[in-house]
Amino acid sequence: MPHKLVILGGGFGGLYAAQALKRADLEITLVDRRNFHLFQPLLYQVATGSLSPGEIAAPLRTVLARQKNSRVLLDEAIGIDAAKKELILADCGPLPYDTLIVATGSRTSYFGNDQWEEFAPGLKTVEDATRMRHKILFAFEEAEREPDPVHRQAWLTFIVVGGGPTGVELSGALGEMANDTMRHEFDNINPEDARILLLDGGERILSNYPTDLSLAAERSLIKLGVRTRNKVRVIGVDAEGVTLRTAAGEERIAAKTVLWGAGVRASEFGKVLGEQAGAPLDKGGRVLVAPDLTVPGHPEIFVVGDLASMTQDGNPLPGVAPTAMQQGKYAAQVIKARLQGRQPPSPFRYFDKGSLAVIGRSAAVAYFENFGKLKFAGPVAWLLWLFVHLMYIVEFQARILVFIRWGFNFLTFQRGARLITGMSGLSRKPE
Amino acid sequence: MPHKLVILGGGFGGLYAAQALKRADLEITLVDRRNFHLFQPLLYQVATGSLSPGEIAAPLRTVLARQKNSRVLLDEAIGIDAAKKELILADCGPLPYDTLIVATGSRTSYFGNDQWEEFAPGLKTVEDATRMRHKILFAFEEAEREPDPVHRQAWLTFIVVGGGPTGVELSGALGEMANDTMRHEFDNINPEDARILLLDGGERILSNYPTDLSLAAERSLIKLGVRTRNKVRVIGVDAEGVTLRTAAGEERIAAKTVLWGAGVRASEFGKVLGEQAGAPLDKGGRVLVAPDLTVPGHPEIFVVGDLASMTQDGNPLPGVAPTAMQQGKYAAQVIKARLQGRQPPSPFRYFDKGSLAVIGRSAAVAYFENFGKLKFAGPVAWLLWLFVHLMYIVEFQARILVFIRWGFNFLTFQRGARLITGMSGLSRKPE
Repeated sequence: MPHKLVILGGGFGGLYAAQALKRADLEITLVDRRNFHLFQPLLYQVATGSLSPGEIAAPLRTVLARQKNSRVLLDEAIGIDAAKKELILADCGPLPYDTLIVATGSRTSYFGNDQWEEFAPGLKTVEDATRMRHKILFAFEEAEREPDPVHRQAWLTFIVVGGGPTGVELSGALGEMANDTMRHEFDNINPEDARILLLDGGERILSNYPTDLSLAAERSLIKLGVRTRNKVRVIGVDAEGVTLRTAAGEERIAAKTVLWGAGVRASEFGKVLGEQAGAPLDKGGRVLVAPDLTVPGHPEIFVVGDLASMTQDGNPLPGVAPTAMQQGKYAAQVIKARLQGRQPPSPFRYFDKGSLAVIGRSAAVAYFENFGKLKFAGPVAWLLWLFVHLMYIVEFQARILVFIRWGFNFLTFQRGARLITGMSGLSRKPE
Repeated sequence: MPHKLVILGGGFGGLYAAQALKRADLEITLVDRRNFHLFQPLLYQVATGSLSPGEIAAPLRTVLARQKNSRVLLDEAIGIDAAKKELILADCGPLPYDTLIVATGSRTSYFGNDQWEEFAPGLKTVEDATRMRHKILFAFEEAEREPDPVHRQAWLTFIVVGGGPTGVELSGALGEMANDTMRHEFDNINPEDARILLLDGGERILSNYPTDLSLAAERSLIKLGVRTRNKVRVIGVDAEGVTLRTAAGEERIAAKTVLWGAGVRASEFGKVLGEQAGAPLDKGGRVLVAPDLTVPGHPEIFVVGDLASMTQDGNPLPGVAPTAMQQGKYAAQVIKARLQGRQPPSPFRYFDKGSLAVIGRSAAVAYFENFGKLKFAGPVAWLLWLFVHLMYIVEFQARILVFIRWGFNFLTFQRGARLITGMSGLSRKPE
């Protein structure tokens, strides 16, 4: 009987593990509750109308169609029986495994204020992105129709919470929408008058980058009409705006559109592993894995990607796609070594190939710590960003389409996917 | 004060009217409850995963951005005060007009059985299309997971109701999905085993075409695994299947997926025009317009497109995009003549440039009644269909993207927009 490998989650971690085991003598079942792999790093472009969801998603079945040892099962894992080595699925019941890779990733964290989710969508799923897109486009339309100047200003105020890459990319894209894409399209408002605020709790945005790159990013944002505010803490979010705590005290900003790019926490399955397989969890709910990415006491269970908690040289690993990819491939190596009775590879080490964050048209920052601390900002960083992202998109077809869409967007300043969907009448408010 | 023209509806009729008045001395307000123009003839390709919604939609503001005399207002018309010449909008209240063009189109008709809508989505809106896509993709996934062969067959049975162009295009695309796109992607099922039934009440499918073209279309469908059944009437639709009345009596077919391509009826605003502006309506609720497309007794109100009811040489005009375009342009001509004090043009006449229906890869039928009754089927008709549809898509960017997507689909047999969206967990049933 072949060895049964179950991979839970078809994101970067799970998919790279499956693909790295293409030729292994295994029976792989990839379980996901969605039928597609999502290229999350470009999700902000769906949220801001540059790309359609279909352009950054690839059906899991198509990606794995030619891999003979793999099958795809659409289902949601709700439990685990670690003693019997069975994953419990919501619809299909128990699914036995010999080895399990858990790669369920992360979800948006509101730092204990889940009630904010209603007003400030995060950016983890396709639905999140289309909800953001809806909110943004709808706000401009409401501003156009709003006779009262105070209310109009609230519709034209956009708050982006979180000065990490997601917040920077979102606010930059918003700035471009307001200043380029929508210019001349309205009669009662100037979209350029939109007030876009990027709020950050720290000293500077992009705090993982060297200080001069943070400042370069801030300058690029200012050119797009985005104002960054550092050292502010969001203490309230509702339908009418946000409440902040600043050095000067409390402050209220009226804004109909609040976008959340501030934090992530472990996916729900982390808790299941903790309770039902005795996995140790960190305070964010992520699984504290052994150096070989397995759950302590369960060498047959691997955790890779955002759900895995691990430090390296004293620092936690970043929750980015390359970490998940490298961990997925590493888990595959360990499994192959075990199958062939070889010595297991040395403990997992993350190799940082560099960081890129894009702000807008020809504006990005790049930092390569492991390559002579090379750093640059501007068009070269932007071209690099473009190249790297195109290279990584899993499915060939999607890659070409995205490239062409970007070409047109660049030449025409347009965004082709500006649909307000998900409701039958536009006079109704977005859900 | 400039003459105020209000156009209600940004479909083919309304948009072509607005664009034909580009240089006219008018103040045009285009009112729509959606922020985009939708290229409806390609909606079935969204429903079957070939295109993303953004690829067949163009933001109305972008389309009209350079037209100085036009503005776009997102709102829904809920009434009219024909005496005061005011359109009543849901959010913005009364909107005065000197001339009004109503182009609100049609919606799906279930022939008095609105309760079927829950089980058998129609194909008029983007949401309809993504709902169909969801249902189709989900059915294959459920079949893959279903151990019981009888239930599995019900998940693999697809009923398309209506043998007009929509039903033919949908069932053909379904046949291609099952036979080409999804081949080799599943383990427990052969998608080729899907049973696709095209139900039609008449003697033959595509009844507006010559008989030999109907038969050619039927042969093409058979090659794709689609079985057509004529002279059957649907008398019941529920979650488990359909009930038919045939010559032999009643018949029940177990099918989890029923798609409705059978009929349309007037949009809701037809009733408003009837009740509040005294417009005469036909039994389908459409407005019986005068020969110049105005509402009898209201020369300042035009009705164009699917909502207008008109016969020509004894036959009702077809509810297709070319009719709406020609009527929109005609209304624009009348308005221009009035503004310039010229003689109005002669009564509207629809010119049938020909009919095209596509079945699948290299398979289509074409009939040109006004060009020597020219008719053909096969690859040439298909190329013509491709060319005509690309030419008509309103926005340049979308046109190029669609073309490239099609190129890839053709070469790879893939469909790039196969997303099951709109729910967080796939183990839950589609709404």
